[in-house]
Amino acid sequence: MEQFIKRLTSEQLEEMERQFAIYVNGTQEVIPALELKNKIAKSLILNTPLKVKLGLDPSAPDVHLGHTVVLNKLKQFQDNGHIIQLIIGDFTGKIGDPTGKSTARKQLTDEEVKHNAKTYFEQFGKVLDMEKVELNYNSSWLSELDLEKIIHLASSMTVARLLERNDFSERYATGKPISLHEFFYPLMQGYDSVILESDIELGGNDQHFNVLMGRHLQEHYGMEKQIVILMPLLEGLDGVEKMSKSKHNYIGIDEKPSEMFGKTMSLSDELMGKYFDLVTDLSLEDKLKIKNELKLGKLHPRDAKMLLGKTIVNMYHGAEAADHAEENFKTIFQKGAIPTDIPEHKWDGEKRIGIIELLVTLELLPSKGEARKMIENGGVKMNSEKINDIFTEVSIVDGMILQVGKRKMLKLKL
Amino acid sequence: MEQFIKRLTSEQLEEMERQFAIYVNGTQEVIPALELKNKIAKSLILNTPLKVKLGLDPSAPDVHLGHTVVLNKLKQFQDNGHIIQLIIGDFTGKIGDPTGKSTARKQLTDEEVKHNAKTYFEQFGKVLDMEKVELNYNSSWLSELDLEKIIHLASSMTVARLLERNDFSERYATGKPISLHEFFYPLMQGYDSVILESDIELGGNDQHFNVLMGRHLQEHYGMEKQIVILMPLLEGLDGVEKMSKSKHNYIGIDEKPSEMFGKTMSLSDELMGKYFDLVTDLSLEDKLKIKNELKLGKLHPRDAKMLLGKTIVNMYHGAEAADHAEENFKTIFQKGAIPTDIPEHKWDGEKRIGIIELLVTLELLPSKGEARKMIENGGVKMNSEKINDIFTEVSIVDGMILQVGKRKMLKLKL
Repeated sequence: MEQFIKRLTSEQLEEMERQFAIYVNGTQEVIPALELKNKIAKSLILNTPLKVKLGLDPSAPDVHLGHTVVLNKLKQFQDNGHIIQLIIGDFTGKIGDPTGKSTARKQLTDEEVKHNAKTYFEQFGKVLDMEKVELNYNSSWLSELDLEKIIHLASSMTVARLLERNDFSERYATGKPISLHEFFYPLMQGYDSVILESDIELGGNDQHFNVLMGRHLQEHYGMEKQIVILMPLLEGLDGVEKMSKSKHNYIGIDEKPSEMFGKTMSLSDELMGKYFDLVTDLSLEDKLKIKNELKLGKLHPRDAKMLLGKTIVNMYHGAEAADHAEENFKTIFQKGAIPTDIPEHKWDGEKRIGIIELLVTLELLPSKGEARKMIENGGVKMNSEKINDIFTEVSIVDGMILQVGKRKMLKLKL
Repeated sequence: MEQFIKRLTSEQLEEMERQFAIYVNGTQEVIPALELKNKIAKSLILNTPLKVKLGLDPSAPDVHLGHTVVLNKLKQFQDNGHIIQLIIGDFTGKIGDPTGKSTARKQLTDEEVKHNAKTYFEQFGKVLDMEKVELNYNSSWLSELDLEKIIHLASSMTVARLLERNDFSERYATGKPISLHEFFYPLMQGYDSVILESDIELGGNDQHFNVLMGRHLQEHYGMEKQIVILMPLLEGLDGVEKMSKSKHNYIGIDEKPSEMFGKTMSLSDELMGKYFDLVTDLSLEDKLKIKNELKLGKLHPRDAKMLLGKTIVNMYHGAEAADHAEENFKTIFQKGAIPTDIPEHKWDGEKRIGIIELLVTLELLPSKGEARKMIENGGVKMNSEKINDIFTEVSIVDGMILQVGKRKMLKLKL
C-alpha cells in the first residue's frame, strides 16, 4: 500500500492524529496500528471514506451494553464520515448446524432472519445513524460460490493454521470431533471482507482469529489488507464474567431508565473507567478528564458512577429521563428514604427466580400465601420500585434491594 | 440392505458363489466381503446389473500392465453383465493445484482433458468392451455444487478422520503444510459414488482412504453403501517397486509383442503367480491349475513364464502375434542362437540412458564414434532386436541382453 502519510499537509496530519487517537482509545488491539494511520491518511488524501465492517450473527439479537462496545467504536468512525458496513450473516444462519448437534446454531428461516435483522436495525439505531449504514446480507454472495471458487478459497489456508484457533486446538487435542464444515465459517467471514473491500474490520477480542482471516484472504486475492480492530470484552455487573444475557449480568439498551441507572450504580469502582471508555459516547477529552480527576481524588467514585449512569441513560432515553433517573436515585438512596445500613444477604441460588419464591426463600415473608397477599397490597418493592405482578420473574443482581412493608429490607450480594 | 441371499434359488446361489469366487480372486481386500455376496444376490433376484465404479485421474495416461490390474477386475464384472462406470476426474484436472506448488497436479485445459479421456478410451478398449462402459465426467455434477451443498457434504466428515489418512498424518506430524482444499479431493471422489449410486468401487490399495469415502458419504446421504474392492499394487520388472513409467520397470500395453514377451520372461519366478492372477484374462480354473502344477513341479517355471508371456501378448496383440513372439524367443534363447552362459554385468548407473553412452560405458565398444558406426551398420541388438536409431533411449531392465556384432554379448543385472 502506498505511503499516504508522507503526502499529508500539516493540517491533515493533525486531523489524522486526532482520528487515530479516538479510534485507538479503548481498543484491545489494532493490527497493525501504523497501517491504520495510513488508512486514515489515504481517506484524507483521496477524500474517500473508509469502509468499516462489522459482521453480525443472525440469531435473535437482544442488544445489551456488551454489544454497544463495538457499536460505539463504529459510531466514532461514522461521526468522522466513514462508511459502516454491517453484515448480517444470514447464509450461515440459514444453513444452521448441518450435523444437528449444536442447538446454538439452529437453522433459521428467511422470515426469522429478516425479523432479526429488523430488530438489529431498530436497536442499533440507538447508537448509529442507520440512514448512513450500509446493510449487507452475506448470502447474496456466498450462495453464488461454486466448488471451483471454494477450492481456490480453501487453498489459501492450511489445516495446521486453522487448527491453531483456540477452540479447535483444544477440541483436536482432547479428541472432540471437529466437523470439516466448521473450518468454513472463518473463511466465509474473511471472504465477506474480500467482497466488500473493507478497510477495517471490528470484532470482539474473542473474534481474533476470524477477523484476521479477512486480512489473510484479501492478501490472497491481491487486495489491500484490512486493519483489524479488536475491542475488549465487557465484564458484566458481576465484574467477572463477560456481559451476556444468559449470565444475567447485563444492562439491556431497552431497559427502563431507573433499571439502567440502578444497575450502573451497582458496578464496582474498578470497572468504571472501562465502562466510560467502552459504553459511553463522551468525547475522548471528557473521558480522560474524568479518569484523571478520579485518580487525583478530585472526583468521588460515587459521583463519577452517577455521571456514568446518567450518560448511559441519556444515550438510550434522552436527557430528561437521565435527569429523572439521577434525581430518583438520589431521593431514595442519598436522602435517607432508604437507610444506608441495610442488612446484606449472600445469594447463591438461581439467578432468575419468581418473586414469591424469592421472598419466601429469603424469609422476608413466612409463606407463599403471605407473599402473594403482600404483593397484591403493594407492600413489596425492588430497588424502590413497587412490584405489582405476583408472577414477576426477578433477575438477581449484586446490590439489589428488596423491601417488604415499611421497614423490612435486604440487600442481595452475589 | 435387504438380505437377498436368503431369497436365492439353489441355482442362483451357485451362480452367486461362482461370481463371488471370481471377483474376490487376486484382490487385496473386499470391504465387506459378505455384503458383496448380497449385492450379487440382489442383482440376480432383481435381474439388474451392478454398477461398478472406477475413478481415473485425467492427467496424461500411458497405460501399462500395472493399470490393467483394476481393468481386468472390471472385465470380470463386465463379462457377467454388470455395468462399468468410468469416471474421468476432469473437475480436479481443470482446477489443478490452486497453490501452484504441485507440478503433479497441473491445470489442464478442456482440450487436454478430452484428449486424455480419448486416450484412456482407446487403451482401455484393449481390455474392456467400451461400447458397454458408462463414461462420466465428474465436472458435470461437481461444478454444480454450491456452498450450501458443500457445507452439508463437509459436515459429514471430521478433521481428525481426514488427518488419519497416511500422507496427511505424516505431513501434519512433520509440520509440512496441508492446504485446506486438499481435504476436498477424497470428499469429491466419495461424492461421485453418491451421484452415480455405485454398488461397487474399485481402487488400488493406495486408494484405501479415498475409496472408503464413497461408502461413508453414501451412508450420510441415506443410500445403500457401496462395496470397496482394493486391488494389490503390481510390482514391476524389478520385483520390488510398484510398476510405473517413471521407474522404468513397466510393460506398456502398447509395446511390441517381442518386447512384451521378453520383459515378461525377465520376471522373477516368485512374481509369476501374481501376474497370472492380476494381469491375465485366464479363467479362475486355469489360474489355479497353473499355480498348482507349478507347486507340484509338473510345470517348469520357465514354461509357465512362457505361457504367461504368450497370454499377455495374446491379450494385446492377438493369438498370431503371441505364437510368433514365443517362437522368436525360443529360436533365440532356447535353440542356441544366444548362448546360455552370457557374461553378466551389474548395472548401477542411470536407469534410462542413450544407447551410445550405454555401449561405451559397458566397454562393448571403445568410443562413441565406433558405437555410432556399429549401430548404423546394424550390428547392435538389444534383447535380440536390432537397434537402428543412434538416438535410442534405453530403459535398463534386469536381465536385458546387449549384443554387439556376432559374439560380444552382455547381460545386465540390476
